[in-house]
Amino acid sequence: MIKYDGADFQEKTVANVEEACAFRNKSSVMWLNIDGVHQSEIIEQVGKSFGLHPLVAEDIASTGQRPKMDDLDDYIFVVLRMLRFNEKENETKTEQISIILGSDFVISFQEDEGDVFDHIRERLRNNKGKIRKLGADYLAYTLIDAIVDNYFMILEKLGETIEDIEDILVTNPTSETLQTIHELKREMIFLRKSVWPLREVISRLERSESPLINKSTCIYLRDVYDHTIQVMDAVETFRDMLSGMLDIYLSSVSNRMNEVMKVLTVIATIFIPLTFVAGIYGMNFRYMPELEQAWSYPAVLILMLTVALVMVVYFRRKKWI
Amino acid sequence: MIKYDGADFQEKTVANVEEACAFRNKSSVMWLNIDGVHQSEIIEQVGKSFGLHPLVAEDIASTGQRPKMDDLDDYIFVVLRMLRFNEKENETKTEQISIILGSDFVISFQEDEGDVFDHIRERLRNNKGKIRKLGADYLAYTLIDAIVDNYFMILEKLGETIEDIEDILVTNPTSETLQTIHELKREMIFLRKSVWPLREVISRLERSESPLINKSTCIYLRDVYDHTIQVMDAVETFRDMLSGMLDIYLSSVSNRMNEVMKVLTVIATIFIPLTFVAGIYGMNFRYMPELEQAWSYPAVLILMLTVALVMVVYFRRKKWI
Amino acid sequence: MIKYDGADFQEKTVANVEEACAFRNKSSVMWLNIDGVHQSEIIEQVGKSFGLHPLVAEDIASTGQRPKMDDLDDYIFVVLRMLRFNEKENETKTEQISIILGSDFVISFQEDEGDVFDHIRERLRNNKGKIRKLGADYLAYTLIDAIVDNYFMILEKLGETIEDIEDILVTNPTSETLQTIHELKREMIFLRKSVWPLREVISRLERSESPLINKSTCIYLRDVYDHTIQVMDAVETFRDMLSGMLDIYLSSVSNRMNEVMKVLTVIATIFIPLTFVAGIYGMNFRYMPELEQAWSYPAVLILMLTVALVMVVYFRRKKWI
Amino acid sequence: MIKYDGADFQEKTVANVEEACAFRNKSSVMWLNIDGVHQSEIIEQVGKSFGLHPLVAEDIASTGQRPKMDDLDDYIFVVLRMLRFNEKENETKTEQISIILGSDFVISFQEDEGDVFDHIRERLRNNKGKIRKLGADYLAYTLIDAIVDNYFMILEKLGETIEDIEDILVTNPTSETLQTIHELKREMIFLRKSVWPLREVISRLERSESPLINKSTCIYLRDVYDHTIQVMDAVETFRDMLSGMLDIYLSSVSNRMNEVMKVLTVIATIFIPLTFVAGIYGMNFRYMPELEQAWSYPAVLILMLTVALVMVVYFRRKKWI
Amino acid sequence: MIKYDGADFQEKTVANVEEACAFRNKSSVMWLNIDGVHQSEIIEQVGKSFGLHPLVAEDIASTGQRPKMDDLDDYIFVVLRMLRFNEKENETKTEQISIILGSDFVISFQEDEGDVFDHIRERLRNNKGKIRKLGADYLAYTLIDAIVDNYFMILEKLGETIEDIEDILVTNPTSETLQTIHELKREMIFLRKSVWPLREVISRLERSESPLINKSTCIYLRDVYDHTIQVMDAVETFRDMLSGMLDIYLSSVSNRMNEVMKVLTVIATIFIPLTFVAGIYGMNFRYMPELEQAWSYPAVLILMLTVALVMVVYFRRKKWI
Repeated sequence: MIKYDGADFQEKTVANVEEACAFRNKSSVMWLNIDGVHQSEIIEQVGKSFGLHPLVAEDIASTGQRPKMDDLDDYIFVVLRMLRFNEKENETKTEQISIILGSDFVISFQEDEGDVFDHIRERLRNNKGKIRKLGADYLAYTLIDAIVDNYFMILEKLGETIEDIEDILVTNPTSETLQTIHELKREMIFLRKSVWPLREVISRLERSESPLINKSTCIYLRDVYDHTIQVMDAVETFRDMLSGMLDIYLSSVSNRMNEVMKVLTVIATIFIPLTFVAGIYGMNFRYMPELEQAWSYPAVLILMLTVALVMVVYFRRKKWI
Repeated sequence: MIKYDGADFQEKTVANVEEACAFRNKSSVMWLNIDGVHQSEIIEQVGKSFGLHPLVAEDIASTGQRPKMDDLDDYIFVVLRMLRFNEKENETKTEQISIILGSDFVISFQEDEGDVFDHIRERLRNNKGKIRKLGADYLAYTLIDAIVDNYFMILEKLGETIEDIEDILVTNPTSETLQTIHELKREMIFLRKSVWPLREVISRLERSESPLINKSTCIYLRDVYDHTIQVMDAVETFRDMLSGMLDIYLSSVSNRMNEVMKVLTVIATIFIPLTFVAGIYGMNFRYMPELEQAWSYPAVLILMLTVALVMVVYFRRKKWI
Repeated sequence: MIKYDGADFQEKTVANVEEACAFRNKSSVMWLNIDGVHQSEIIEQVGKSFGLHPLVAEDIASTGQRPKMDDLDDYIFVVLRMLRFNEKENETKTEQISIILGSDFVISFQEDEGDVFDHIRERLRNNKGKIRKLGADYLAYTLIDAIVDNYFMILEKLGETIEDIEDILVTNPTSETLQTIHELKREMIFLRKSVWPLREVISRLERSESPLINKSTCIYLRDVYDHTIQVMDAVETFRDMLSGMLDIYLSSVSNRMNEVMKVLTVIATIFIPLTFVAGIYGMNFRYMPELEQAWSYPAVLILMLTVALVMVVYFRRKKWI
Repeated sequence: MIKYDGADFQEKTVANVEEACAFRNKSSVMWLNIDGVHQSEIIEQVGKSFGLHPLVAEDIASTGQRPKMDDLDDYIFVVLRMLRFNEKENETKTEQISIILGSDFVISFQEDEGDVFDHIRERLRNNKGKIRKLGADYLAYTLIDAIVDNYFMILEKLGETIEDIEDILVTNPTSETLQTIHELKREMIFLRKSVWPLREVISRLERSESPLINKSTCIYLRDVYDHTIQVMDAVETFRDMLSGMLDIYLSSVSNRMNEVMKVLTVIATIFIPLTFVAGIYGMNFRYMPELEQAWSYPAVLILMLTVALVMVVYFRRKKWI
Repeated sequence: MIKYDGADFQEKTVANVEEACAFRNKSSVMWLNIDGVHQSEIIEQVGKSFGLHPLVAEDIASTGQRPKMDDLDDYIFVVLRMLRFNEKENETKTEQISIILGSDFVISFQEDEGDVFDHIRERLRNNKGKIRKLGADYLAYTLIDAIVDNYFMILEKLGETIEDIEDILVTNPTSETLQTIHELKREMIFLRKSVWPLREVISRLERSESPLINKSTCIYLRDVYDHTIQVMDAVETFRDMLSGMLDIYLSSVSNRMNEVMKVLTVIATIFIPLTFVAGIYGMNFRYMPELEQAWSYPAVLILMLTVALVMVVYFRRKKWI
C-alpha cells in the first residue's frame, strides 16, 4: 500500500517497490506502509531504493527486536512494539512496527495487516486537522502516537480484568483466581519490557538534534513522552496491585484452611475425653460399684454433657470456635 | 470566577471568558479560577484568548494526567494532583489542578468546586501578607503551596488511621484489620504516584531559567520543595510501617493459630493413651486375672491419673502448654 | 544564653535578644544558644536582629523539619536532628537543632534544654584546643560534630540491645523477642530517615563555595562527612542483621512448633492401632474362639507391645522422633 | 593457527610465535587464533612480539576474568566470556576469550579448541560478505558478534527447558521440578554475571575515540550492543519467570498438602463422634433401659448414619470436602 | 620496622620515629611499616615528623574506619580493611590498614603484626621484578594489591564452605546447616561493607590527578580495580547462592515435615473407622442378631481388612502415601 499527501492526496496499493519510488521526488510527503515483514525480498528492495544500511533491513526483518531508535543522519530508524489483545485466548501479543523517517517520506513495516493506522489514513483522506499541512516528522509522530494510544486500550482491558479479579477475591477465591493473577503478573513483565525502552526511544527522538525533526514537532513528541510515562506508571501500579492481590489471596486461603482445621480439631478434642469416659465404664472389672447403681448411667451422661459444654464455652470464650 | 489584584482589588464571577479578558491589560495581576474542566468549550475559549497551545488545552481537559511542568516560553503550564479525603467512604480521591502562569495572569482549573483556595482568596481580599505586592509567580506559588499543605492534612489523617490500627494489632487483630492494612498499602501506592512527579515538577520550576519566575520567588519554591520531600518521606515511612504491621499481623495470627492447635493436640495426646488402657480392660477374654480383683479397678483409675499427670508435667516442662 | 569568644571569653545568660545584639559588633565570634523553639516571639526578635528571612524563622519554629542546608548568602541555615535515647521507655526520640552560621556569629536553637553542647562550652571556657582561635565556621563544625558523635552513642546502645537479643534468640526466643525486633526495625527506619539527609547536608556544606566557610574548615567537615557515612553503614548493617534475626526467629519458632506437633502426632499414631486391637477383643460376638483360651490375653498384650515397639523403632530410624 | 587476509588469503597452522610474526608487516590484516591459554610461554612470546603490557598477558593467562575492555593506545584489549552448553551434564559452562585488536592484527585467545569461530574462518576463506575488504576492527567485531550470537543459542535452550518445566508444573510437579527451577535460577545468576559487564564492554568499544576503530564499524558495534541488551532482557525475563514458577510450585505444593490434610481430618472428624456413641452403649451399667429394647440397636445405627450424613452435608456446603 | 629501597637496599627495625626520619632525605623510597596502631604516641611522633594533619593521625588510631582515600596535596591517605580468616573460630575478622603515600615515602600502619606484606619485603630484598626501580606510588600499589589478593583467599575459603554446605543440603540438612547459612550470610554483609568502599577508594586513586601518582602506575591501579570488582561480583554471587540455599533448606525441611505429618495422619485415618466398627460390636444391646452368628466375627474381621485395603489403595492412587 502506498499513500501520498501534500496539498493534494493520492492513495494507491502497489505490488512492488519500484512503482512506489517513481512517485517519490515530488516535494510532498510519502507514506509507504508495508504489511508482512517476512517477505525479505521486499525489504531488500526498499532498502536499496531508499539507501538503507544493511543492518537496518536486517533489524526490520528479524521480529523480536527491542524498541530502539537509531539516527543514521539521512533517516531515523525507529523500532516499536505494538500490543494486540487476543480476546479469544485472553492474551496480549506484541507485534514489531518499524518506522523509517526520511526528509520527505515515512516507511512503516507491520508484521501483520493491522487496523491501528486506519484512523490516520482517514484523517489524511479527509484532510482533517493539520496532518496534511505538516511534514514527514509529524506523520511519524502520529504513527507513534497511535501505537502509544493503543497501549492505553490494552491497559484499560487489563485494568478491567484486575478489577473483576478483585471482586472475586473478596467473594469467592479459587485456585483459578490464583492462576489468573500469575498470568497477569507475567503479562505485566512482558508489557514492562515493551514500554521501558519505548520511553527511552521517544525521549531520544525528542532531544535528537536531527534536522529531520522540526522544532514544532518536538512539543508533540513531548506529549507522547508524557503518555508513555503514564503507561509506565499504570503498569507499575498494576504490578503493585497484583502483588498485593497475590498476598491477599494467599493469606485468605491459608486463613480459610486454618479455620477449617481449627473447627475440625475442636470437634475431635471435645469427643476424645468423652470417649475416654465411655471407655472407662466399658471395662469389665468385676468390682465396679458405680455400675450397679440405677442412677449412675444418667449421671455419667450428665457428666459427659457437662464436660462437653464446659469445653465448648471455654473454646468460645478463647475465640477458638 | 475572576479576580483582580494589584494596588487595589476587584472580584467578579463571570460567565464567559471574553468578559474576563476585557479586564486583562492593566499592569496588574489577574487570577482566573475555573471550576469544572469538563466543559470543553470554556477551555477552548480560554485557550484562544490567552494563546495556549492546543495540546495544553487537551491536557487540561483530560483528567488523569501525571503531575508535570512545561515551560512554553510565554507561559508555564503546571499540572498537579490535589488529594481529597472522602470521610464517608474512608477513601482518598485525587483531583487534577492545572495552573497556567503568564507574565501578568494565573489561570487555575479545578475538576470540581473546591475550597482549598478559599484561604488565598481571603488573603487577597484582606491584603494580608505580601501576596498583593508580589507578582503572578508568587500567586502561583501560593496555589501550589496550598495544594502541598493539603497533602499534610491527608497524611495526618492516614497517620491517625495507622496508629489506630497499630493499637488494634496489639490488642485484638481481626481479618478486617488485615483488609484495612491492605487498603492503606494501596492508598500509599496511589499517594506515591501523585507525590513523586510533584517533587520533580517543583524542582524544575525552581531551577527553570524562565523570566516568568522571579529570583525572590525561588526561595519560596525551594520551601515548597522541602515540604514535598517531607511528604515523600512520610509516605515512604508509612509504607515501611504498613509492611512491618502486615508482618506483625501475619506472624501474630499464625502464632495464635499454632497455640490453638498445640493445646488441642496436647489434649488429644493425653486422652488417647488413657482410652487405650480403658480399651484393654474392656476386652472380653475369659481369663483376665486382674478383672477379678477388688482393688484392680481403683488401681487402674490411679494408673490413668498418674499417666495423665506425668504427661501434663512433661509437656509443661517442655513448655508445650 | 549568650557566649562570646575571641582572644578573651565572656559568658552570659540573657533574657531578651536586644541585650544579646548589643554585644555583637566586636570582631569576635558570638555564639547564641536558644533553648525552646516554641516561644515564637523570641525567634521573631532574633530574626529581625540578624536579618533572617521569614521562611527561615518559620522553619526554626516548626519542629519536624527534615535535615537540610540553605545557603542564603549572608548566612547559612542548617537544620539537623539530634537523637536522644530515653532509657525509661527504651525509645529513641529526635529533637530539631537549627544552626545559623553568619560571618561572626553562630545561633543554635534547641527544642529542649540539652547537655550535648556542654562539652563545647567547657572547651571554650578553658581555651582548650584551637576552638577559640578559629572562626564562627569552626564553632558551627564543632556543634555539628557533637551531634554526629551523639549518633554513635545511640548506635552503640542499639548495638548492645541487638547483641542481647541475639543471645536470647539462641537460648530462649519468646514472642517479646519478636516484638523487640520489630520495634528495633522501626527505630532503624526512623534513624535512617534522620541520617540520610544529614549526609547530604554535610556534603553540601563541605562543597559549598560560600565565603562563610574557610578552606581549612573543609577538611574537618569532610571528617564529619566520613563519620556520617559510618553511621549510615552501621544503620544499614543493623537493618540487615535485624532482618536476618527476624528470619531466624520465625524459622526457629516454626521449627519448634513442628517438633511439638510431630511428637504429639507420633504418640497418637502409636496408640490408635493399639486401641483398635483392644476394640476388636471388646466385641461381644458369641463365637470368638480366642477369647476362651487362657493364653490369648497375654498373647494380645505381647502383640500390642510388639506393634508399639516396631512403630517406635521405625519412626526413630526415619528420624521422625 | 594463523590466518591472513587482505586482497588475497593465506591460512597456516604454526607452532611458534616467531613464525607468525614474520608474516606481519604486509599492510594486510592478520588474525592469530591461539587455543589453550594455559601454556604461559606462548602468551609470553606473543606478549613480547606484539609489545603487550605484562598485565595484559597476565589477564589472558588467568581465566576467570570479568569481561572488560582496556584501551592501551597501541591496541585494545577485550576480555569476553563465551558460554558453552554441556548437553550431558545439562550445565552451562563459561570460557574466557581474550581479543587484542591492533592496527593490522587481531589476536584471539581461547581456553579450549572451539568451533564458534569456524563460521568466520569460512567467510574469510570464501571471501563472503565484506569481511575481507574491511580492516582489523571489523574482524574483531565479527568475533564479538559470534560470541554474542552464541548467547542467543544458549538462551533458546534455556527457554525450552523453562517451557518444559512450565508444562510439568501444570500437570505433575515433583520435588525434582523444584530442584530444576533452583538450578535454572542459579544458572541465571551466572549468565547475568557474564552479560552485564559485556554490555559495558561493547558500549565502551563503541564510544571509544580510539583511532583503531573505524567510524563505519561503530554502527556494527551498536548492533551488537542492541543484541547484548536483548540478551540481558531475556535473562531478566527468565529470572522473573523462574521466580513466578517457584511461587506457583510452592503454592501448588502447599495447596495439595492442605487438601490432603483437610480430607484426612474430615474423615477423622466424622468417625470420632460415631465412635463415642458406640462407646456409650458399650458401657456395662446394669440399668441402661435402652439396651433391653429390640428396636434400640437399629435405632442407634440409624442415628449414627444420620449424624454422619449431616456432617458430610455440612462439610460439603462449607466446601471443606 | 623501617625499610629503604632505591638502587641499594637497607632494612632496619627501629624503636622510635626520629631514627627513621634520619634516613629520609636520600632521594630514595622509604617504606615505614608500623605494627600496632594503639600506641598513640608513636602515631603522634610520625604525624609530627611527616607533617600529617591531626585528623589523619586520629583516623589511623581509631580502628573501625570505613575504607576511604583523602588527597591532602602533600600526601595521599588511604584507609583499607584487611580480612583475616580465623580458622579456629571459623570467623572472618577485619583489620584496619592505613597507608600514607608521600613523594618519597610510604608509611603503613597495621593493627597487629601481620604477614601479608612479607611477600613484598621478600621481593624488595631480592630485587625481584621492577619494584625497586619504580617509585613510592608503585610500592603503595603493591601494598594495596597484596590486600586485595588476600580477599581472594578469603573468598576461596568461603566458597569451599558454601560448596560443603550445598552437599550437606542435598544429603542430610540439619538445623546446624541452617545456622551456618545464616552465619555465612552475615559474613557476606560484613565482607560487602568492606569491599564496596574499597572499589571507590581505588577508583579515586586511579583517577586522581595527584602528582604523587605516576601515569605508568595507573594501569596497575586499574588492574587492582578490576580485581576489586571481581571480589564484589563473587560476594554478590555468594549472597545470591546463600539466599537460594536458604530457600532450598526451608522448602526441603517443610517438605519433609509435611511428608511425616501426611504419613502419620494417613495411619490415623485408616484406623479410626476400623475402631468405630469394633466399637459398634462392642455395644451391649440385648438384641443384636449378628452377635449370635458363628460366621459374623470372621466376617467383621474381613470387612475391616477390606475397608483398610480400599483406603490404602485409594490413598496410594491419590499419591498421598
